[in-house]
Amino acid sequence: MTIQARRNIGWLALLALAPALVSAQEPSTEVAYLPQNTGDILWYLVAAVLVFFMQAGFALIESGLTRAKNACNIMMKNILDFSFGVLAFAIVGYSFMYGDTIGGFIGWSSDYIFMGDALMVGDDLAATNLVAAEWLFQVVFAATAATIASGAMAERTKFIAYILYSIAITCLIYPIVGHWIWSENGWLTLMGMRDYAGSTVVHSVGAWAGLAGAIALGARKGKYTPDGKPLPIPGHNMPMATLGCFILIVGWFGFNAGSTLGASDSMAYIAMVTLIAASSGCIGATIATWMKFKKPDLSMTLNGCLAGLVSITACCGSVSIIGSMAIGLIGGVIAVFAVLFFERTLKVDDPVGAVSVHGLCGIWGTLAVGLFGTTAIDSGLTSDGLFYGGVAQLGIQAIGVLAVFAFVFPSCYVLFKIISATVGLRVSEDEELEGLDISEHGNEAYADFQVYADLPEEELA
Amino acid sequence: MTIQARRNIGWLALLALAPALVSAQEPSTEVAYLPQNTGDILWYLVAAVLVFFMQAGFALIESGLTRAKNACNIMMKNILDFSFGVLAFAIVGYSFMYGDTIGGFIGWSSDYIFMGDALMVGDDLAATNLVAAEWLFQVVFAATAATIASGAMAERTKFIAYILYSIAITCLIYPIVGHWIWSENGWLTLMGMRDYAGSTVVHSVGAWAGLAGAIALGARKGKYTPDGKPLPIPGHNMPMATLGCFILIVGWFGFNAGSTLGASDSMAYIAMVTLIAASSGCIGATIATWMKFKKPDLSMTLNGCLAGLVSITACCGSVSIIGSMAIGLIGGVIAVFAVLFFERTLKVDDPVGAVSVHGLCGIWGTLAVGLFGTTAIDSGLTSDGLFYGGVAQLGIQAIGVLAVFAFVFPSCYVLFKIISATVGLRVSEDEELEGLDISEHGNEAYADFQVYADLPEEELA
Amino acid sequence: MTIQARRNIGWLALLALAPALVSAQEPSTEVAYLPQNTGDILWYLVAAVLVFFMQAGFALIESGLTRAKNACNIMMKNILDFSFGVLAFAIVGYSFMYGDTIGGFIGWSSDYIFMGDALMVGDDLAATNLVAAEWLFQVVFAATAATIASGAMAERTKFIAYILYSIAITCLIYPIVGHWIWSENGWLTLMGMRDYAGSTVVHSVGAWAGLAGAIALGARKGKYTPDGKPLPIPGHNMPMATLGCFILIVGWFGFNAGSTLGASDSMAYIAMVTLIAASSGCIGATIATWMKFKKPDLSMTLNGCLAGLVSITACCGSVSIIGSMAIGLIGGVIAVFAVLFFERTLKVDDPVGAVSVHGLCGIWGTLAVGLFGTTAIDSGLTSDGLFYGGVAQLGIQAIGVLAVFAFVFPSCYVLFKIISATVGLRVSEDEELEGLDISEHGNEAYADFQVYADLPEEELA
Repeated sequence: MTIQARRNIGWLALLALAPALVSAQEPSTEVAYLPQNTGDILWYLVAAVLVFFMQAGFALIESGLTRAKNACNIMMKNILDFSFGVLAFAIVGYSFMYGDTIGGFIGWSSDYIFMGDALMVGDDLAATNLVAAEWLFQVVFAATAATIASGAMAERTKFIAYILYSIAITCLIYPIVGHWIWSENGWLTLMGMRDYAGSTVVHSVGAWAGLAGAIALGARKGKYTPDGKPLPIPGHNMPMATLGCFILIVGWFGFNAGSTLGASDSMAYIAMVTLIAASSGCIGATIATWMKFKKPDLSMTLNGCLAGLVSITACCGSVSIIGSMAIGLIGGVIAVFAVLFFERTLKVDDPVGAVSVHGLCGIWGTLAVGLFGTTAIDSGLTSDGLFYGGVAQLGIQAIGVLAVFAFVFPSCYVLFKIISATVGLRVSEDEELEGLDISEHGNEAYADFQVYADLPEEELA
Repeated sequence: MTIQARRNIGWLALLALAPALVSAQEPSTEVAYLPQNTGDILWYLVAAVLVFFMQAGFALIESGLTRAKNACNIMMKNILDFSFGVLAFAIVGYSFMYGDTIGGFIGWSSDYIFMGDALMVGDDLAATNLVAAEWLFQVVFAATAATIASGAMAERTKFIAYILYSIAITCLIYPIVGHWIWSENGWLTLMGMRDYAGSTVVHSVGAWAGLAGAIALGARKGKYTPDGKPLPIPGHNMPMATLGCFILIVGWFGFNAGSTLGASDSMAYIAMVTLIAASSGCIGATIATWMKFKKPDLSMTLNGCLAGLVSITACCGSVSIIGSMAIGLIGGVIAVFAVLFFERTLKVDDPVGAVSVHGLCGIWGTLAVGLFGTTAIDSGLTSDGLFYGGVAQLGIQAIGVLAVFAFVFPSCYVLFKIISATVGLRVSEDEELEGLDISEHGNEAYADFQVYADLPEEELA
Repeated sequence: MTIQARRNIGWLALLALAPALVSAQEPSTEVAYLPQNTGDILWYLVAAVLVFFMQAGFALIESGLTRAKNACNIMMKNILDFSFGVLAFAIVGYSFMYGDTIGGFIGWSSDYIFMGDALMVGDDLAATNLVAAEWLFQVVFAATAATIASGAMAERTKFIAYILYSIAITCLIYPIVGHWIWSENGWLTLMGMRDYAGSTVVHSVGAWAGLAGAIALGARKGKYTPDGKPLPIPGHNMPMATLGCFILIVGWFGFNAGSTLGASDSMAYIAMVTLIAASSGCIGATIATWMKFKKPDLSMTLNGCLAGLVSITACCGSVSIIGSMAIGLIGGVIAVFAVLFFERTLKVDDPVGAVSVHGLCGIWGTLAVGLFGTTAIDSGLTSDGLFYGGVAQLGIQAIGVLAVFAFVFPSCYVLFKIISATVGLRVSEDEELEGLDISEHGNEAYADFQVYADLPEEELA
């Protein structure tokens, strides 16, 4: 309706409301109230927009932590992974995730192909608004899972390879895991697994995909000396990486508090423990780094914030405030040592620490439900967490963590091997040295600036 | 009221609510409900904030796609165009747009001068809240229209000239078009034109203003060789341009879904097709570029996202999901060829492709209502779209598109000629070579960095 | 609940609602409505997220206006000040601010230690949601106050010193002032002081802390010649500073309009005058700068936007639209002359103008309640403002401004002297010349770029 029509209704409503506005109201025949359903949709949208904004956050932190010669390529990968992911999740992905279950393993409902487009199923549009809101909230989660891997695979992955991966993960791999844990008949749901907003469903899935990719690709040229000693490859824009981190924190409010799946009071408690865990993770990582390396390091601090957030994501509806402080703090410390572990011990080149932050902290956050969770806060738990005397929930969480790894990591590794054998997975050595911006896109990220050449020849492996 | 008073009410409400929180509720005498009017205002505010954020997005993408020596100037223009625009739209602009109609051409209501300031009209403040919310939502749209032109006119427009343009467009030109299409008695409204969130009202208006400006200014020095061959002038910060694009997508959720003008369930469907169109536009532009130039190009990809968004803006309340995929995809392809057309064929120097993305895709999106629109989804249409067997709506859309171009383009061209003859429109050649940052502001954008000198002399026209 | 369960309820609700969706509704036994309390929480969360985003805005504008060699350090300080601040405010800060009053000076309630963690006080979680929302909204205000000082103290403060300051201010200094003015029994509240969203509570507190720090630290090396003439030290990334400013404006919508403390219609009016004041401040500063220096300067323009915002923050619920234009405009002009005053006359080195924008404009905004405020708009005022013939409110505002300065400035100065005598406040001269990124963190902000060395030796004091 036009704005004047709205305003006429509004004036009348205001006049009717005027005496009522400052005191508790009772429904009366003059005042119109906001339906709960519309409030749910409104909150779904706010949360979905915040989570969508995380796409920008991931792009900035990935690019800031890597080299200038690959910056356009990182931007291209981040934009195309959500673009293809949105279409994939609209066409089939949502059906695989939330359709009628097939054995608790995967879903399927023809009603969700093209999200029930009127052309396809002749639905009355008015009936699809809540489903549209649910889809919007779910698709930005799928896009988040997809984009996590791009950090671990940065600076040497072929663009077309990355697009094919994005389609596969949002189409099939992610929806399957989502069906197990978030669909009401998924086998892990029925077993009682609790992953409130996705430490496993989103963050671990993205991390295991990234781990498979990083291993399939091999390390960047110049990352390791011939005898396997890792060399630092510093990021080209740390303020940009920091802005990316801030945007991720902002988006995470939607990520966790939006997972109430509608407007309900518990949004508040979840948002509170989310912020507390981010702060604790930041402090934990900063102190751990300060003690180990004698100086607090910005990239470790950024990863500490994210580690705290990933850690609280599974358990934000189940733990106490002090619990969230501990979970975040430990998550931050885990991230620091995990980054070193992957880089130095396993010698897996993960340019941004995505596997550490999203994978190992994803495990930690998921298990934390079975440690710090309490039925006093979350009556849906199978048992209290270990620190409250229960055992069953921890066992369930562990099964879920193992099952998801056992599915995602090999599936993605096979996927990358197939891609490698067909279109190719990794760019050539010359392309890598020149930088993917030039070789893949013919672009320069910073055309007006003097950008340093790469590492001196004598350090390259 | 203070926080304790609020909390006391809150505690009582919660205690009363506790059993009711997890099931569908019925109004009772103990529970207070949120009035629809307050829900409308809340959604207006959320949407307005998102659209305001697009000002930052435009600034970043315009600057990222142009040279470092003009970056401060682009920032100045973007900040001042909203600042002057807000005041202009508060003082008279809203009255021209939404005041009582004069022949369906323009509005006027003295109640809207200074938005009904209590000093002016003695209004009871309580009655102005909904109007304040509507103004806030509308002013950020006006500011969006204004800022679109700055990209097309970048790198050679005098600062004072740009300020005068900003005042004129938010004061008068934009409100007139808004009155035609969005005021309930505007002549195009009465004719049945449908432009849900502004492919014509906002994006085409900004584009035709930018086109007029770009032509009145002439091309940047060095853009064309003496025999008219265009030379690339690469942007100085592609990651910044990309962040700008992401911010625009985020803001567009408010732009389109806020155009429900209040909190109603259809916000969800509109947000869904908006994201789908952005993704499709991105993919369309990327594939078109990849095929034509052998490599996918970041700036074309960014413009593809925006093209999809501009295209869905008019028709997001009228088309199916598959329709939105097609509309976005075609919009992305249009943008690619339009950029080349303006640059190579018409030889109009539009540094960021604003006229292509906001103008040609604005036309496409507006006509798309008359192609893909269906009364099954939008019962307010005059007829179905062409693909559903109707004809009238397409005709109406075309009339609107032509009428708006016929008013805005010449008006703006005359405006720029007047500005050119008075304060001057274009900077001098020396100022342009030195960079507007130094010449207009005495500023340097990147004082600590080595920034390359401009194009070699021998290439300059 | 799972998404299917939600959807089933949603479908039924939608079918029931379908005829009712487009007209004013009356409560009936089929439709569920959104409780006011849930609407309040939703608005608290939206506002808190916007204010949290301001942390990113402050980081970007502070870093953009200072040198590249200290960029990582500025990022670290901004992240750690909110991290420590969040924990401090969760553990004790909220109790000091909103606990039961002790003489109107400070609060204390054991219920607020660790925000009433279930482990601590055995609360029913359902009852803590509103308190959680209030805490979340309040903690981001505390974090804002803390981070303002980092700009005034930039480029020479030891990292550990800054962390200790952050804890002290969010733990104690800020909560005390907050108790005075925002707690229902605070002595300034009882006196009738009106500071709607914190021109004094947040912005002045941060500014006086920053002033104390800047004085305790002394000027940056190279800022003044031996005979006290100030030298410009230009910022290294003005587009980044501008993005920071835009993010602050976006966040300020939450800052001011969220201070309704719940979802009520007045959110709209407050948001409107907030945007108007930002625009007016920008224009005021730009014109003042243009007249005084012959060219409009970007950093002055940015500070003008913020000055307008700080100025309206205290009075946004009390003044007319035209009043907000005047208040913003004057605030913008004040900021320009204040920056020069501190730099040239008082010779206090404030690298970003924080004391001018947040302190002097904080005073202006607070006094403006007593000048432009009118009981016709804000019936809670003790008297009309001076321009409406009242005097008492202005006197109350002035007392509050003086009392807060008299408490915060000396307290912070003593705090910084204690820090200076213990862990040290300022880095060594060598560390300062090398840049805090290397000396404090072992980091480089822009590893791929050629960054200029610092000012030539002969200009250094």
